[in-house]
Amino acid sequence: MIPIDDSPLCRDGKVLILAFDHGLEHGPVDFTGLPESADPERTFEAATHPAVTSIAVQKGIAEAYYPSYEDDVDLLMKLNGTSNLWMGEPDSAVNCSVDYAAEVGASSIGFTVYGGSNHEIEMVEEFRDAQEAAREYGLPTVMWSYPRGQGLKNDTSEDTIAYASRLALELGADVAKVKYPGSKEGMEHAVRMAGPTKVVMSGGSKTTDREFLQSVKAVMDAGGKGLAVGRNVWQREDPTALLDALEAVIFEGASVDAALE
Amino acid sequence: MIPIDDSPLCRDGKVLILAFDHGLEHGPVDFTGLPESADPERTFEAATHPAVTSIAVQKGIAEAYYPSYEDDVDLLMKLNGTSNLWMGEPDSAVNCSVDYAAEVGASSIGFTVYGGSNHEIEMVEEFRDAQEAAREYGLPTVMWSYPRGQGLKNDTSEDTIAYASRLALELGADVAKVKYPGSKEGMEHAVRMAGPTKVVMSGGSKTTDREFLQSVKAVMDAGGKGLAVGRNVWQREDPTALLDALEAVIFEGASVDAALE
Amino acid sequence: MIPIDDSPLCRDGKVLILAFDHGLEHGPVDFTGLPESADPERTFEAATHPAVTSIAVQKGIAEAYYPSYEDDVDLLMKLNGTSNLWMGEPDSAVNCSVDYAAEVGASSIGFTVYGGSNHEIEMVEEFRDAQEAAREYGLPTVMWSYPRGQGLKNDTSEDTIAYASRLALELGADVAKVKYPGSKEGMEHAVRMAGPTKVVMSGGSKTTDREFLQSVKAVMDAGGKGLAVGRNVWQREDPTALLDALEAVIFEGASVDAALE
Amino acid sequence: MIPIDDSPLCRDGKVLILAFDHGLEHGPVDFTGLPESADPERTFEAATHPAVTSIAVQKGIAEAYYPSYEDDVDLLMKLNGTSNLWMGEPDSAVNCSVDYAAEVGASSIGFTVYGGSNHEIEMVEEFRDAQEAAREYGLPTVMWSYPRGQGLKNDTSEDTIAYASRLALELGADVAKVKYPGSKEGMEHAVRMAGPTKVVMSGGSKTTDREFLQSVKAVMDAGGKGLAVGRNVWQREDPTALLDALEAVIFEGASVDAALE
Amino acid sequence: MIPIDDSPLCRDGKVLILAFDHGLEHGPVDFTGLPESADPERTFEAATHPAVTSIAVQKGIAEAYYPSYEDDVDLLMKLNGTSNLWMGEPDSAVNCSVDYAAEVGASSIGFTVYGGSNHEIEMVEEFRDAQEAAREYGLPTVMWSYPRGQGLKNDTSEDTIAYASRLALELGADVAKVKYPGSKEGMEHAVRMAGPTKVVMSGGSKTTDREFLQSVKAVMDAGGKGLAVGRNVWQREDPTALLDALEAVIFEGASVDAALE
Repeated sequence: MIPIDDSPLCRDGKVLILAFDHGLEHGPVDFTGLPESADPERTFEAATHPAVTSIAVQKGIAEAYYPSYEDDVDLLMKLNGTSNLWMGEPDSAVNCSVDYAAEVGASSIGFTVYGGSNHEIEMVEEFRDAQEAAREYGLPTVMWSYPRGQGLKNDTSEDTIAYASRLALELGADVAKVKYPGSKEGMEHAVRMAGPTKVVMSGGSKTTDREFLQSVKAVMDAGGKGLAVGRNVWQREDPTALLDALEAVIFEGASVDAALE
Repeated sequence: MIPIDDSPLCRDGKVLILAFDHGLEHGPVDFTGLPESADPERTFEAATHPAVTSIAVQKGIAEAYYPSYEDDVDLLMKLNGTSNLWMGEPDSAVNCSVDYAAEVGASSIGFTVYGGSNHEIEMVEEFRDAQEAAREYGLPTVMWSYPRGQGLKNDTSEDTIAYASRLALELGADVAKVKYPGSKEGMEHAVRMAGPTKVVMSGGSKTTDREFLQSVKAVMDAGGKGLAVGRNVWQREDPTALLDALEAVIFEGASVDAALE
Repeated sequence: MIPIDDSPLCRDGKVLILAFDHGLEHGPVDFTGLPESADPERTFEAATHPAVTSIAVQKGIAEAYYPSYEDDVDLLMKLNGTSNLWMGEPDSAVNCSVDYAAEVGASSIGFTVYGGSNHEIEMVEEFRDAQEAAREYGLPTVMWSYPRGQGLKNDTSEDTIAYASRLALELGADVAKVKYPGSKEGMEHAVRMAGPTKVVMSGGSKTTDREFLQSVKAVMDAGGKGLAVGRNVWQREDPTALLDALEAVIFEGASVDAALE
Repeated sequence: MIPIDDSPLCRDGKVLILAFDHGLEHGPVDFTGLPESADPERTFEAATHPAVTSIAVQKGIAEAYYPSYEDDVDLLMKLNGTSNLWMGEPDSAVNCSVDYAAEVGASSIGFTVYGGSNHEIEMVEEFRDAQEAAREYGLPTVMWSYPRGQGLKNDTSEDTIAYASRLALELGADVAKVKYPGSKEGMEHAVRMAGPTKVVMSGGSKTTDREFLQSVKAVMDAGGKGLAVGRNVWQREDPTALLDALEAVIFEGASVDAALE
Repeated sequence: MIPIDDSPLCRDGKVLILAFDHGLEHGPVDFTGLPESADPERTFEAATHPAVTSIAVQKGIAEAYYPSYEDDVDLLMKLNGTSNLWMGEPDSAVNCSVDYAAEVGASSIGFTVYGGSNHEIEMVEEFRDAQEAAREYGLPTVMWSYPRGQGLKNDTSEDTIAYASRLALELGADVAKVKYPGSKEGMEHAVRMAGPTKVVMSGGSKTTDREFLQSVKAVMDAGGKGLAVGRNVWQREDPTALLDALEAVIFEGASVDAALE
């Protein structure tokens, strides 16, 4: 962890990452309900919303779309990922180097670590290389910290999420992206474990506006520093409305009711 | 994806790759029906046809034959490949470096990725190295995107082909070479998933002229940008006739009937 | 082994490492009994005690907290570690490079080797790289020498601990951190096997003050050079009291009774 | 494939490699019938015969004996090999780098690839490194192309040998060393598949002079470019007589009868 | 093999290596009978005997003790080794680089290769790197050539030992350290197979003076060039007496009876 409040990834010390790596991780099936959501441009447009501090995409999407948005969007390059065709123990291919991410214009990097997978050792060593290279470029590092694999039964238990956020601190991530442990108390525990590493909630699958904002509010009340959201934004017909509400909750401290008005 | 319309791989934004790596991938059995087809020179001659934007061969063939054709043919160096003697999970040896491909004179590179194979992680990381090295030389990258392996039952379903073309976009390929999903609608889906990455159809095994041209026409009508063809050209006694027809369909927008005249 | 008495890791040739890598190795469960113990700052504060020669933490904790303590605490960077979510044969990810440890300000490094694990070969080769790189920076090397794995039944037998300390000598560690073999005689054997490599006891889980100090005294009487202690310090409500006692026993040769007064 | 007719490996475009790597590949058992054949000097002496274009040995033999023969013998450094104590899937350790081969004075290199082995991918990638490094030194590359492994039932069938020689062409070997497929027709097929890559027969175990020369003659008549011979030369009491006959058949186009006179 | 007679490893072309790597390979159990034998200084003292051409130790022992003996003892750095806690197929961790061995002051290097192990390929490739790096420093290379593993039933048969010494020659070792094959004839066979590579006997477990000297004498009579001895020297109360006798047998051609007087 190093101080990142002055980096483009943060606004008032908080973070709202708009993630759009689902075409790789989940495949086209995620775009079925709203076919136009397959188009990265639509999500880049959404990322121009002032609530969004950075857009998180894979290398190919970054190369193709970021140049048109470099004045209006900050780029978090997600450095690893795997298709859901993969049938092995949880693992993630490093598909972009830090050097190349910097060249494309990224102002931060993202990296998945599956603690507890049979590939944990290898992934942590790849994370080391990425994190140390990112330090040389002065780029903040966000860890997608998702315990998963043969030893994990329930990967959103409070204990698992607390461990996930601690791993991010111990291994040198500046931001820990973890799943919501189901309660404000669970998130408080995770936040305490992370020390100065900022904890942000992973948005997960699409829910109702209210339900989603309530979990975000709980995260903020628990001391979390924001959100990495994907489907709950770009699977909506009107991403802007929810981004307005998220801006209110995350950056302005609004209540869910107020944000929904 | 980066803009490649001005590269030698493209003509009017479209692509016709004449592939001749079958001696490695399939072995001499592919030449049985037409013994002279084993001779790479015959296919290099065919590649001088104006319809062909590049010839795709492995390193050894490139070294031996390209120097005599460098004024008349553009070289796509296929960087990986495997013999069909291989009995393991789908995988592909990187048998040529990008540095060497550039030295031999390649103006683009090709790389196979078997999404869903137990070797997906490794292949994607090898692809990363190749793609980033190719970027340094300014060489477009074509991904042979073929989901295959333990998790894949039907590798030409619409969903699989759409995922294949999305993987190409997400991982930074400039052209996605995918199998024909069986219909124009299936190809439209694949094309939408690829965004600005050009989707070209993989020619597959030899069929009749009409049948082949109909699938090519469907690809072009679906928004595909061309074709990578091998056996359907060089297994024919007269490659030129079919190349004339392909030129009409791909670059001149002709109907299949018109092209067959 | 090289002479390290003049290094910050030593005081009068003896060593007291305050270890705080449990958040990675054991997870938040270690902090349950005393929630404030999760906060690294609390242990950094404890490390300002004159009894402590160095604090041992992982990269992320070092980055976040060491800068505020660099005038009052010496940093031992622990270079590898694993979560207890890991279900494979004992192994440890190298999560920090020596170059980076030096840049963060470490004055010594720590490295776990699990002799007898199926990963022994790999870990010893990683240790080689770390030890030789540390030599270039002039940083002493502490081996967490813990025989463990398929071949090991009882990992605190005298023979196993003696082998553990000999491995540290043979492989070039300056300090061997080994478990207590249960008796002064066992520790004498381990000390003899280590030659000039300093043997320090690994503190283990929390016990009573008297019991703990008695084992430390036995280690010193056996020729050991000190202690690496974690939970027995920071899981106590008042770490200072025990550190005062440890200072008396380790650096002033006091009896346990005298130290407890 | 690059032009190598002007290299020391060739005489009038043809090749006669005297191979003496059996001490590694087969072990001392190959020397049992003729104990003095164990002495590399005896085979180096034989290699001074004008019929021999290069001697193929492993690094250690080259280091020890080549310096005394550098004016009279050309050195082909065989870069990989395995003892027959190895019980795994066919594989071959790369026991000499190209840099070192060049330093010792090699004028060409040799490399085994077992197509169809579970190690095919790895061996082909090692071959790539060797071939590309050899290109930098301007050293011709000879592939010992031996399909072998779990998928291979009969490794001297015509189809297998034809595939073996094609692999050599596709992967960039200048010379393909393949087993004799049992007939002139089979060898013609292999030669056609290799294009400009020179196909030479692998000598195999010792037979009668006539039988051996007949197969060599068949190879030359089939368009083969020569022979890599070991045991059929150095297991003979008088290597010179057979080398005289081989010179006649390979370089002078003599009939077997004429060569045997 | 390169000429090494003028190197510190040799005296009149012969070699007597005093090996003391047992603390790593066997563990403290080897010191049980004579506790003071655990102290490396005692063996370094023994190594000042004029019969000893070099002492063979692992990195850590070399770092700690060699500086005090550098004027009186020559250092052979053993570069790899494994604890006997290891339960896998025979393998050996490379625990010291050649660069570091040279920096510590080694005048030769030692490296174990287990021919026939499932790790043979990997070990031979590691040997290649070590041997070629040693060549750059001009350091002679000694191969501990011990066929061992799944395919090996009797690893001291004449055939196995002959193969072991041949492997050393073929792979570029300057000295082959092999086990005694049980007879002078067996050793003669091994010596013939090694060509100019010097064959030295591996001392093995402790026996009587006479029995040990008789095998050494047989080795010398068989054309062997010396001995690598460990336990038969340092497990003796008076190492000097046996070293005197070994000097007589190895360097002065004395009979066993004369040497024992």
